[in-house]
Amino acid sequence: MGVLSEGLTQVLIPAAALVGIAFALLQWYLVSKVKVSGDSSNGYSSKLIEEEEDGIDSLEVSIKCAEIQNAISVGATSFLFTQYKYLGVFMGVFAAIIFFFLGSVKGFSTKSEPCTYSQGKLCKPALANAAFSTLAFLLGALTSVLSGFLGMKIATYANARTTLEARKGVGKAFITAFRSGAVMGFLLAANGLLVLYISIILFKVYYGDDWEGLYESITGYGLGGSSMALFGRVGGGIYTKAADVGADLVGKVERNIPEDDPRNPAVIADNVGDNVGDIAGMGSDLFGSYAEASCAALFVASISSIGISHDYTAMSYPLIISSVGIVVCLITTLFATDLSEIRDVSQIEPSLKRQLVVSTILMTAGIAVVSFFALPSEFTLFNFGTEKAVKNWHLFFCVTIGLWAGLVIGYTTEYYTSNAYSPVQDVADSCRTGAATNVIFGLALGYKSVIVPIFSIAIAIYVSFSLAAMYGIAVAALGMLSTIATGLAIDAYGPISDNAGGIAEMAGMSHKIRERTDALDAAGNTTAAIGKGFAIGSAALVSLALFGAFVSRAGIDTVDVLTPKVFIGLIVGAMLPYWFSAMTMKSVGSAALKMVEEVRRQFNTIPGLMEGRAKPDYANCVKISTDASLREMIPPGALVMLTPLITGTLFGVETLAGVLAGSLVSGVQVAISASNTGGAWDNAKKYIEAGASEHAKSLGPKGSDAHKAAVIGDTIGDPLKDTSGPSLNILIKLMAVESLVFAPFFAAHGGLLFKFL
Amino acid sequence: MGVLSEGLTQVLIPAAALVGIAFALLQWYLVSKVKVSGDSSNGYSSKLIEEEEDGIDSLEVSIKCAEIQNAISVGATSFLFTQYKYLGVFMGVFAAIIFFFLGSVKGFSTKSEPCTYSQGKLCKPALANAAFSTLAFLLGALTSVLSGFLGMKIATYANARTTLEARKGVGKAFITAFRSGAVMGFLLAANGLLVLYISIILFKVYYGDDWEGLYESITGYGLGGSSMALFGRVGGGIYTKAADVGADLVGKVERNIPEDDPRNPAVIADNVGDNVGDIAGMGSDLFGSYAEASCAALFVASISSIGISHDYTAMSYPLIISSVGIVVCLITTLFATDLSEIRDVSQIEPSLKRQLVVSTILMTAGIAVVSFFALPSEFTLFNFGTEKAVKNWHLFFCVTIGLWAGLVIGYTTEYYTSNAYSPVQDVADSCRTGAATNVIFGLALGYKSVIVPIFSIAIAIYVSFSLAAMYGIAVAALGMLSTIATGLAIDAYGPISDNAGGIAEMAGMSHKIRERTDALDAAGNTTAAIGKGFAIGSAALVSLALFGAFVSRAGIDTVDVLTPKVFIGLIVGAMLPYWFSAMTMKSVGSAALKMVEEVRRQFNTIPGLMEGRAKPDYANCVKISTDASLREMIPPGALVMLTPLITGTLFGVETLAGVLAGSLVSGVQVAISASNTGGAWDNAKKYIEAGASEHAKSLGPKGSDAHKAAVIGDTIGDPLKDTSGPSLNILIKLMAVESLVFAPFFAAHGGLLFKFL
Repeated sequence: MGVLSEGLTQVLIPAAALVGIAFALLQWYLVSKVKVSGDSSNGYSSKLIEEEEDGIDSLEVSIKCAEIQNAISVGATSFLFTQYKYLGVFMGVFAAIIFFFLGSVKGFSTKSEPCTYSQGKLCKPALANAAFSTLAFLLGALTSVLSGFLGMKIATYANARTTLEARKGVGKAFITAFRSGAVMGFLLAANGLLVLYISIILFKVYYGDDWEGLYESITGYGLGGSSMALFGRVGGGIYTKAADVGADLVGKVERNIPEDDPRNPAVIADNVGDNVGDIAGMGSDLFGSYAEASCAALFVASISSIGISHDYTAMSYPLIISSVGIVVCLITTLFATDLSEIRDVSQIEPSLKRQLVVSTILMTAGIAVVSFFALPSEFTLFNFGTEKAVKNWHLFFCVTIGLWAGLVIGYTTEYYTSNAYSPVQDVADSCRTGAATNVIFGLALGYKSVIVPIFSIAIAIYVSFSLAAMYGIAVAALGMLSTIATGLAIDAYGPISDNAGGIAEMAGMSHKIRERTDALDAAGNTTAAIGKGFAIGSAALVSLALFGAFVSRAGIDTVDVLTPKVFIGLIVGAMLPYWFSAMTMKSVGSAALKMVEEVRRQFNTIPGLMEGRAKPDYANCVKISTDASLREMIPPGALVMLTPLITGTLFGVETLAGVLAGSLVSGVQVAISASNTGGAWDNAKKYIEAGASEHAKSLGPKGSDAHKAAVIGDTIGDPLKDTSGPSLNILIKLMAVESLVFAPFFAAHGGLLFKFL
Repeated sequence: MGVLSEGLTQVLIPAAALVGIAFALLQWYLVSKVKVSGDSSNGYSSKLIEEEEDGIDSLEVSIKCAEIQNAISVGATSFLFTQYKYLGVFMGVFAAIIFFFLGSVKGFSTKSEPCTYSQGKLCKPALANAAFSTLAFLLGALTSVLSGFLGMKIATYANARTTLEARKGVGKAFITAFRSGAVMGFLLAANGLLVLYISIILFKVYYGDDWEGLYESITGYGLGGSSMALFGRVGGGIYTKAADVGADLVGKVERNIPEDDPRNPAVIADNVGDNVGDIAGMGSDLFGSYAEASCAALFVASISSIGISHDYTAMSYPLIISSVGIVVCLITTLFATDLSEIRDVSQIEPSLKRQLVVSTILMTAGIAVVSFFALPSEFTLFNFGTEKAVKNWHLFFCVTIGLWAGLVIGYTTEYYTSNAYSPVQDVADSCRTGAATNVIFGLALGYKSVIVPIFSIAIAIYVSFSLAAMYGIAVAALGMLSTIATGLAIDAYGPISDNAGGIAEMAGMSHKIRERTDALDAAGNTTAAIGKGFAIGSAALVSLALFGAFVSRAGIDTVDVLTPKVFIGLIVGAMLPYWFSAMTMKSVGSAALKMVEEVRRQFNTIPGLMEGRAKPDYANCVKISTDASLREMIPPGALVMLTPLITGTLFGVETLAGVLAGSLVSGVQVAISASNTGGAWDNAKKYIEAGASEHAKSLGPKGSDAHKAAVIGDTIGDPLKDTSGPSLNILIKLMAVESLVFAPFFAAHGGLLFKFL
């Protein structure tokens, strides 16, 4: 037994979650002190006037900002609520599927069964597991939706405030945006932990000593979280990129008006898209990763000696890691908001990157403490039919290597997507000879950028797998996600700054303000890419852990590539990311074409629009994005949700294991290269636009042939980096967690086709 | 025992090879009857005059064609000879590596060893296997080089002849181009078979009854063939695309002059490139596939009951299949050249596609005959530690399903790359909104196009694997390659027609001639894509067969994904195609940038060049392509050649097995999508240019915005479809065959790093 008592554990976890929530609310309160209404009594306007540019009335600007913010917020909320209607139907149908599939395992019998791992004991009936899995699924789904929704709320609350603060200087604006990101990060991490903790407590009321059944049912939580994330990412991704691509193609390329120009009819849809795709979608995604990693670790632990001997504290190790993570992130946040101040544009990116390093170093110490106090010095794990002895310091290394692999992936992503380094500069340089060479170099950059992340993941897998089998992988994934609050804070900061820039442009604020928000946004582009790197890296580890848990649960001891059943699964699985990307890319392309036609139509038919005398019809563009994303999210969603069900039912667990392994190893590559290619094109364009060096100046200015070529690359990169790439994380995780949840059914009734042949 | 006697087998195989060679020489003779010199005594000029356009002197045109043909031929020959110098060094070094690595397995002992499979018997020493493997490697390498070289010779011999025949009509030109392709196809198929057959006969003089050692050594033949193919494909691919992209970017985009305009300094390099890349490179590639599939099948058979009982005829089953294939292709060729005649442009593509169908149907009958006469009605195969009873009709199904899977892949490729169908038309339509949407739709098309081929391959694998284990896979690969002579004929026809069009343009022939050669070329684009589909499909099956042979040879019974050693191999292996593509894409990009600068420099500094009064400096452009391709082929070559050696030596056979499986399942997807995306962009451009429908006309004409967007897509597709994509076939095959050859060394001394840890 470890040193930490059961009672203390039961206090520590909810306490950490509540501290996280309180901290998030505190940040929200601090952000709310910036007033966006025109009311001059807030004491800001008077201070602001002196720094204000000539000719811009503070009150008028403030009112305009409030108006735009409202439009964005209303658009985002209404989209999400429409989406939730669809998701509600899906949740109901899928909950029924889970209940009936799992209930049918033992023919809906209400009799207790002998346990699989705790020999000689009786476990709860399969029907109970079906019911509780369904319940856990619904809880996970609701928490996921809530995470995305809260993130969107704070983001649309913070965007105009960031714009207004930018009038006072870049430091103030940075803190507003960053605090808002922190609200989302801490709410998500703390809610995820709290709901999971409470669910376990409540489930235990029924399950009692049957931990096998308890933690098997809990995996439904991960499935719920991830399935909502799928639709959030895909739907949001299509929404945002249809608007973005459509707005750019007509606005920037044809009409030569700047980004976020209020004359562009798609501009509101574009800014709404940032919030529903990059904020709500990403929030659901990372919540899903977190929930799945926790569930995978808990499930694997429950069938180890820890679970069989009912060591509560050791069993809660994954949750304690996450609790400590919240505290570590809280301290880390202070480094950005209180212990230092941004005085200059050049300090933004280092400050954000410092967050990653500080949280990683602090967390390493935290992991050491938790590993030594919470775990027994030695215990045994179930390793696909054999037993494996593990020491507590083994687990320390597993979690830590996951954590540091995340940092390496983050920094590599930064190297390949930031225009401070040669890879993006080379891509920018290739714009000299036109869009074709830009695309060739960008694709090559994306392909190249997978090398270091894959080696990092491979090393993390080898070490944690060797030390602690699949439990090692699961906690390595948790290690990478333990600083999720900080990761999300710097990730959400990006779209908030992007929106702030949009609002500055639309409200007609001066060039100086726009420059400040642009600087915030440029740093946000890089951190967004880093965030995507984390999301993909953790997805790879999580899905491997889930894969391992699935294989254990399905009762197979080897997944041998040298059997035809497994190999065809492997090659078809490796194909799925391509099929999925084909769907999402085509969806964005088609929706963008419609958007282009609508924007062109408005420019051609609304008199005075180009001269700024008439207002465009923003609502029509919002409608196009909404309709397209809701319609087009269904086929890729169906592909991901149905593949495990069909494969498991018709071809059985071995083929399904092959499919999972294939989609994992192939999907990771596609996801990383797509994200980085897109990020690099975006920043290559920004590099030319900023013209900060002699080299950059020789390519510019805006409107030059090289810049036009760069804009084409940026547009191509949009669906790659914000729709296909990030959705692939969910593809690989979701298929794995779904297989895990349905494993009892597949093991009992799967492989119909092969049985028939 | 089968019905066919050993004596008859020994006559049948070389006879078929000699028939193939004789047929190739006959075709060559028929092509040579078209005279390119200006000598009017050939009896053609008089006939031609009546059909000739006004103002073009036949004699002058004829002389000009001869000049251009000579320049292309000299350029191609000189490039290949320079490349051979490098390859000679590589061959020497690698031969030494093979000898020392394999010799060291038993410490260079000259004592006989107990056999592994034929229990109780003595086999030849490992040192002998090392020596003979080295010899086989050199033979394979030389045959591969010869295949590529002969193909290039006939192609550069035929190009101008096709141009001149085009004056008499499209039918005559078609037959000339097709006959020339047939020369290459039959020479390659027959030489490959003959050299392999003779090698086995000669090796048997030493090995006698030790068939294990004999067929183990013979695998070096496949390694030699494929390693030359790697450099041929990569070097040739970089050469041709650097020239093509460079010529297009300045010529078509900046200067607005047509393709193949003689004023363009890169035009000769471009036409040379077609011959060294698409002809010589592809010839080496398919020879490699053929050699490897044969070696894999022979090796697996040698350790089955066939090999152990020394059933010569059954052992030669793979060679007999190829022999029958030559005869079948011979008959098929007559359908195109003698039994029907092309009278109209619209008949070209159907005629080429008919070749595929006819050869597949005839070959199915051929396979049935061979399977029933050459094989015993039942025998046992070694299946990773277990034994498996197989019947002769099982083998019939294995070979046939490979053959028909090839046809399905070919037709799918055609559907996605021919502009007669909606996928390419949709891509063309997306050019309306510019290059960005064109690229997004093109990438989505490529991703989507992997679905059907992967399912076909998966079904072929499942059936042949289930029926006859790895032997089934190997013969399925041979089945797909059994009609290689026809496949190559229609494949080589493409670049020959492309060159013919170039010569027509450069020689200043009339628009009418150019239209005819363009029609030939457009059909060639589709058949080239089909050829690539075949090459990739067969590569997948071949490398799986080699993988199986490697695993058998290395003495591992399972490749379990659930072990850390295998899994890290799998994920790193899946990354290799990306690393490799990054290198080749970047190489093409950089070389193209240099080419662009040189072409621009010549246009700017040579007075009168644009007006056609001065001649460009073609040689400088040829030099840039040559230097770039020779320099840049080394890093990707090293990646492929060193990965198995390093992985096997440091990490051992399990990790290497993972790498092979990972690179196979991931590389196939990248290769198919890259080839088809590129092919679709090319034909979308041609669709707009041809303007054959109302829809196409609304996008054109040449020079419209939509057309410019299409040209950008085409340029991006060039390195994807002609450099990265096809080279990836070789990556997956070559790593597998290299692992197989070095398996005894890895099994004995591999895994140093893990042993050390």
